[in-house]
Amino acid sequence: MTTNQLVTEIRKKNSFLCIGLDVDLNKIPKHLLKEDDPIFAFNKAIIDATNHLCVAYKPNTAFYEAYGIKGWQALEKTINYLNENHPEIYTIADAKRGDIGNTSTMYAKAFFEDLAFDSVTVAPYMGKDSVEPFLAFKNKHTILLALTSNQGAFDFQTKEIEGKEVYKQVLETSKSWKNSEKLMYVVGATKAEYLADIRTIIPDSFLLVPGVGAQGGSLQDVCKFGMNSQIGLLINSSRGIIYASSNEDFAQAAASKAEELQKEMQTILTK
Amino acid sequence: MTTNQLVTEIRKKNSFLCIGLDVDLNKIPKHLLKEDDPIFAFNKAIIDATNHLCVAYKPNTAFYEAYGIKGWQALEKTINYLNENHPEIYTIADAKRGDIGNTSTMYAKAFFEDLAFDSVTVAPYMGKDSVEPFLAFKNKHTILLALTSNQGAFDFQTKEIEGKEVYKQVLETSKSWKNSEKLMYVVGATKAEYLADIRTIIPDSFLLVPGVGAQGGSLQDVCKFGMNSQIGLLINSSRGIIYASSNEDFAQAAASKAEELQKEMQTILTK
Repeated sequence: MTTNQLVTEIRKKNSFLCIGLDVDLNKIPKHLLKEDDPIFAFNKAIIDATNHLCVAYKPNTAFYEAYGIKGWQALEKTINYLNENHPEIYTIADAKRGDIGNTSTMYAKAFFEDLAFDSVTVAPYMGKDSVEPFLAFKNKHTILLALTSNQGAFDFQTKEIEGKEVYKQVLETSKSWKNSEKLMYVVGATKAEYLADIRTIIPDSFLLVPGVGAQGGSLQDVCKFGMNSQIGLLINSSRGIIYASSNEDFAQAAASKAEELQKEMQTILTK
Repeated sequence: MTTNQLVTEIRKKNSFLCIGLDVDLNKIPKHLLKEDDPIFAFNKAIIDATNHLCVAYKPNTAFYEAYGIKGWQALEKTINYLNENHPEIYTIADAKRGDIGNTSTMYAKAFFEDLAFDSVTVAPYMGKDSVEPFLAFKNKHTILLALTSNQGAFDFQTKEIEGKEVYKQVLETSKSWKNSEKLMYVVGATKAEYLADIRTIIPDSFLLVPGVGAQGGSLQDVCKFGMNSQIGLLINSSRGIIYASSNEDFAQAAASKAEELQKEMQTILTK
């Protein structure tokens, strides 16, 4: 999917919500455990109930890999279900991969070709030649970790290299990489006050913003400091939506939570 | 496996060789493509021919994920084959994972429990709370990326924070994390001259060293600057061994290449 197609969808739905599909078998409603594939059954119900309220879904690969081959099968079924039934929806493999050149190409093939996601999250630690192989794929985005929403972000990301924080060095440096127009960035909502600075470095890029809600970030603040003329934001919520209820009404409960966020987004977009 | 068990195996075999199982279907001998599972058939032949010469195997997960569910099945068969037939051999999932707290726990479960590897490689960018969940697992090691062997290492890893390079900050900081005695570190052989400095920070830790051979690093230099009283080194070679021949004799050719390295190691260990 192109950036323009994503922006069109955001304007159509008045939503820049991304729903994180982080499926933990210990947290999903008990009645689903009787299903052949409880993970996919859960995802399908969530997708069916919420697809009109969001523009993106983001399965975190850790939650699938933890269940081995069955988990990988559930991930494959989920992306196939999305691509077949909702091709207008943007898909993100939250995989945080990154390796040396030809190995990164193999990861890119895994997520862009075998699984046909629109984008994948990638860690920047190994630098240019670990990221550029992802950027070589047409109509695919690479979402680079810049400033994450966890406490550990202060261990290295916010430390200064030559008077500039590591995450800003990552933003600056990545702009010089080949096909850098296909980059998006992860910026945690818990640090919304950093967004004004970030926008001076990457005014046009889309930001994937986790940490609204459960982790304490404010949607209003993120939009105030982070929005650009193309919206430029995908706000992710995982647990706050998908685990809104652990009963048989879980999908409707998820839709209600998603709608709360979508309405808040609509107010911001139409004011 | 404990560090002591690994050291015992190194002394017994006079080898600290790790063989990287990075299986690319475009590079393996053509006759194997007729097999039900060409990836596992290749790995099994390599393992059968080389297990007396090395102390560790390291599949890079990218090469398996690129083939989807079949790839993941081949990875599972490979680790099961190793654990059943060669429990004395140390196994490394070269996955370069890293995510927020509970999500890192899911990755740890994937590699330590579902697949039963002895260790996994992890990226440090997200800091303490992204790595500690891996360190909570008993008799498992977490191998943290410090200084990698690719050109992109110079983008961020060798830049200075408060007068000290990022990779040294990673080494220093990680020592304060809970269960840090279970850490090992990736240090590329192409930068052997950095090893003396690295040993002043982490004198006792094992280092996983890629980049000997194909990428230009010298085994002699790595040992000169990096070896400690417990050996403290695992030298990885992937392509140089497993693709030594693309004919039916590929496994024997791999064994010959592995033996060259093992003999060189024996000379160093027994001099």
